[in-house]
Amino acid sequence: DKLEHDGKLPILPPGVTREVFTKAIVELRNILGGGAEEQTTAAAVVVNDKPLDDGWYLEHPNTHDAFHLYDQEDTVSSATVYPGSVTDVQKIVRWANKYLIPIYPISIGRNLGYGGAAPRVRGSVVIDLGKRMNKVLNIDGGNCSCLVEPGVTYFDLYEAVQKGGYDLWIDTPDLGGGSVLGNALDRGVGYTSYGDHFGNHCGMEVVLPTGDIVRLGMGALPAVEGGDSINPTWQSFQYGYGPYSDGIFTQSNFGIVTKMGFWLMPATEHLTFAITFPREEDFEQIIDIIKPLSARRVFGNVPQIRHAVQELAISGKKRKDVYDNPQEPIPAEVITSVYGPEEQRKDNLKTIRQAFSIIKDAKFVFPDEVPLSHYLHSRVAICAGIPGLTDLNWLQWRPNGSHLFFSPISSVNGQDAQKLYDIVKKRHAEFGFDMMPAFCIAPREMHFIDCLVYDRENADEKRRAVKCMRAMIDDTAKEGYGEYRTHILLADQVAATYNWNNGALMKLNETLKDALDPNGILAPGKAGIWPKRFRDGVQNE
Amino acid sequence: DKLEHDGKLPILPPGVTREVFTKAIVELRNILGGGAEEQTTAAAVVVNDKPLDDGWYLEHPNTHDAFHLYDQEDTVSSATVYPGSVTDVQKIVRWANKYLIPIYPISIGRNLGYGGAAPRVRGSVVIDLGKRMNKVLNIDGGNCSCLVEPGVTYFDLYEAVQKGGYDLWIDTPDLGGGSVLGNALDRGVGYTSYGDHFGNHCGMEVVLPTGDIVRLGMGALPAVEGGDSINPTWQSFQYGYGPYSDGIFTQSNFGIVTKMGFWLMPATEHLTFAITFPREEDFEQIIDIIKPLSARRVFGNVPQIRHAVQELAISGKKRKDVYDNPQEPIPAEVITSVYGPEEQRKDNLKTIRQAFSIIKDAKFVFPDEVPLSHYLHSRVAICAGIPGLTDLNWLQWRPNGSHLFFSPISSVNGQDAQKLYDIVKKRHAEFGFDMMPAFCIAPREMHFIDCLVYDRENADEKRRAVKCMRAMIDDTAKEGYGEYRTHILLADQVAATYNWNNGALMKLNETLKDALDPNGILAPGKAGIWPKRFRDGVQNE
Ligand SMILES: Cc1cc2nc3c(=O)[nH]c(=O)nc-3n(C[C@H](O)[C@H](O)[C@H](O)COP(=O)(O)OP(=O)(O)OC[C@H]3O[C@@H](n4cnc5c(N)ncnc54)[C@H](O)[C@@H]3O)c2cc1C
Ligand SMILES: Cc1cc2nc3c(=O)[nH]c(=O)nc-3n(C[C@H](O)[C@H](O)[C@H](O)COP(=O)(O)OP(=O)(O)OC[C@H]3O[C@@H](n4cnc5c(N)ncnc54)[C@H](O)[C@@H]3O)c2cc1C
Repeated sequence: DKLEHDGKLPILPPGVTREVFTKAIVELRNILGGGAEEQTTAAAVVVNDKPLDDGWYLEHPNTHDAFHLYDQEDTVSSATVYPGSVTDVQKIVRWANKYLIPIYPISIGRNLGYGGAAPRVRGSVVIDLGKRMNKVLNIDGGNCSCLVEPGVTYFDLYEAVQKGGYDLWIDTPDLGGGSVLGNALDRGVGYTSYGDHFGNHCGMEVVLPTGDIVRLGMGALPAVEGGDSINPTWQSFQYGYGPYSDGIFTQSNFGIVTKMGFWLMPATEHLTFAITFPREEDFEQIIDIIKPLSARRVFGNVPQIRHAVQELAISGKKRKDVYDNPQEPIPAEVITSVYGPEEQRKDNLKTIRQAFSIIKDAKFVFPDEVPLSHYLHSRVAICAGIPGLTDLNWLQWRPNGSHLFFSPISSVNGQDAQKLYDIVKKRHAEFGFDMMPAFCIAPREMHFIDCLVYDRENADEKRRAVKCMRAMIDDTAKEGYGEYRTHILLADQVAATYNWNNGALMKLNETLKDALDPNGILAPGKAGIWPKRFRDGVQNE
Repeated sequence: DKLEHDGKLPILPPGVTREVFTKAIVELRNILGGGAEEQTTAAAVVVNDKPLDDGWYLEHPNTHDAFHLYDQEDTVSSATVYPGSVTDVQKIVRWANKYLIPIYPISIGRNLGYGGAAPRVRGSVVIDLGKRMNKVLNIDGGNCSCLVEPGVTYFDLYEAVQKGGYDLWIDTPDLGGGSVLGNALDRGVGYTSYGDHFGNHCGMEVVLPTGDIVRLGMGALPAVEGGDSINPTWQSFQYGYGPYSDGIFTQSNFGIVTKMGFWLMPATEHLTFAITFPREEDFEQIIDIIKPLSARRVFGNVPQIRHAVQELAISGKKRKDVYDNPQEPIPAEVITSVYGPEEQRKDNLKTIRQAFSIIKDAKFVFPDEVPLSHYLHSRVAICAGIPGLTDLNWLQWRPNGSHLFFSPISSVNGQDAQKLYDIVKKRHAEFGFDMMPAFCIAPREMHFIDCLVYDRENADEKRRAVKCMRAMIDDTAKEGYGEYRTHILLADQVAATYNWNNGALMKLNETLKDALDPNGILAPGKAGIWPKRFRDGVQNE
């Protein structure tokens, strides 16, 4: 299983000799400027020749995947470069074209569960955009929008909004340490009305794999005064004129995004609550209750159904506390919010109560009824756009807790939900994992988010985790479900399930890839898309 | 000004001799099958060698632009072909590649004000997709969605929903005779909560310029039973896995869309009303009142501010009735809706009333207070997704009434609105046109829709209309505004205003065009995008 290399560090990009690599790195340092001393600092280029350290969430590595699936060295970089400007990014890209060295952009690199900061091709040079390009460039209170650089985290953006005194919310995923821009490029989700992060972006600036910069949407109109400043409608209208291309720069390897605009939600009154239900067999019916309410936007956000194991893990319960006491059922719960003026919240809550009244023993739990340490309070914050880190705690369910997300999409209905649940349950039992599923129920589709927690120091457990994932991807594809996002090492398998008409979609993706990145230098293999020179021969893995 | 040709009909595509063209048409008829007789019927290929007839809305021509800007023959086709299936479309595309004959797809071809059914390149073969491919393939009442072919009009879809007894709304533009699919590809708009037609699409099937078919989004997952049938999540989730490419097939010439999914709005109670105000100088303040309400979604749709001339035209008033009676001011009005349960409608209406209370003499007008013939009733229908044709009437403001849309986008604020209004007013006065402007005010941007009505039988008036448009495009670009959509003959000029970084956006568009359409056969010049062989020499216009 172990990948071969010559034992020396750094591990090199495929097809590049140590001599050429060393020369290329010297050149890269010169290109990016700075004196001899500065070049060895974080401000320039750091060669990845030290022992790997998995770190932890706040001190995550940008050298490899902290939650490695196979060997720690499998998705390791040869170096990390820290651009300080868009011009630096262009220089790096042109350099990569010259040496045919694969580059892999990250904004923060906390894409945990999906590959972290790791490149798909071993020995790639990671471009850590976030370290030095981390400014909130603009917040427009009237337009309810912002423009950010890659390194702006949810915590940063939240703070900037607070400091500026704007009456606006941000939307945050479970963890606040990720990049607002990076998460949206991976089409991540949050828990207010603006939870679809790509859907609520407005405007992108992209460095193409050839080194050219383009502004999409209204950003392509010059500013009134001319020059490089920014057109005032860039964060107002998403589509611009002509083909709307923003989407091709998400979940892809077609460009490096250096600026991105986002819409911010006008602050609103809100009530977040849980509806607990003790019987697993009511699950199907509950989905069918949620469906029409969700379509009518009675909920202000995407309700989540969470298996209580996740919550118990967060509240510090041990495995035996939960599973060795079979007389008490393990409950599940729906967590959701209503927003808006009091009358409207009341009206919506009434509708929800009535709809759930047919579920026996369903119980509404409101934040003011539970102690401050209760998990619900952290959801209240998230559902009001306040970033946090509480959800990190469920990683503690296993020692050296790492995890993989298995994230298939289905239509919203009880039958599909049940089928997915059964597949995951069976495979988890087979490979010896506890289940921590959550369903995020949008008006027409559910993100089933299965969190597979494993001990990354246990080689056998890692092997089982990968096998479990691969089996679930195949099982669900057979039933017509597909993943919305996946770990970088599982991307080929997931992409291969989207194979209608002999893989027509991948052929389209490859056509775009070869046109935009003729030398195949940008993130080869990301989303299962390999550039021509890798398809034609240069092997990886 | 007049384009040259040899005087014979049909007018040929550039670079194709009459001999080759005749041979190619025979071949096309054979490829599409059918006996000798059938070949001369609408089921196959009709050569455009008869005198041109501008027709009228319901009998619109698919041979040229009924609302011609210059000469009637400028944007004329050589032939029209009527595919009956996706396979036919593939065959036509491969045929076009063989003969290097430009093809121009339309769904219905009622794109009036933006070029109608006309190709940009004279002598192109128009593919009229809608005539035979016109089925509503599916309506899913639970998922609140549909899947349609190109020929489904708003009237058709409305009828299908009614017949099926679904508790759903469609969203329609002002006129119901357009194509649900074609309008969305041009990123058209309507007047319910689902007014952003591209934003509310879900899933596309595209025949690429090489003849390959691809399904985007979840459509790329095979159906459960395998084969050609349809994956059940295709209309549930927009993005699928990997790059989200749907947007590049809108306002472009990168593919022919043969199926498209749309989300339908759960039917809701509604109240549509007008707020009239008599003084032009209150206009700026009214925009600033609407802005925060719109951002908070107090309105259920995009409010429109309409200059009353449009309404007066619709109600059959003559020009002198309006302008020769200066003691009565020409009022303007805001038309909008509140949706949802009674309590919520009341609450939102209260908020709106309060906000407008600072405008002197602003008057709320409700449908039950005005006679059935009043224009407001037609808006009530449109704002509840019921298609109609009332808005055709303002074309009668001039004899042989034709029109051009001038549609710049700005941020939502009084200053920008006023600036746009002043530019349009000045240029209309200069070139001798009455103004019929409308502002559609979304949460963060306004579509300013200026309807320039002209007499297409009056050569001087046409010349002035074009000059007026070209001047307004330049004037507004200088102020940083850009058009969201334009007439096909003005596309080059509009595209050239999106020129940040030396036309980086157009370079990206051209890269995509050349990769997807190496022979440059699909709709050359659409959205200002010319394929390589046209950029490199073959002239047009
Ligand atoms: C406990 C837990 C809970 C989580 N909950 C959520 C959740 O609720 N919602 C959610 O969405 N995710 C969730 N995640 C996953 C993950 O933490 C977040 O998505 C995180 O925001 C992603 O990392 P990042 O923001 O640092 O992005 P990055 O890792 O910087 O970027 C993500 C990917 O996008 C690409 N990319 C990044 N920047 C650029 C660029 N500038 N140009 C081109 N490509 C780029 C890269 O390929 C990169 O791998 C969770 C993870 C954990 C561990
Ligand atoms: C009085 C009046 C009011 C109007 N009000 C509105 C309004 O409220 N909102 C609005 O959006 N428009 C409005 N319009 C403009 C126009 O009538 C509509 O947009 C109409 O729906 C467009 O024509 P169509 O649907 O027949 O599309 P088509 O003409 O069939 O298509 C539009 C364009 O998209 C492209 N296209 C079409 N089908 C395909 C395909 N299958 N594959 C690839 N490309 C394709 C073609 O280039 C075509 O030119 C109005 C027009 C008038 C005269």
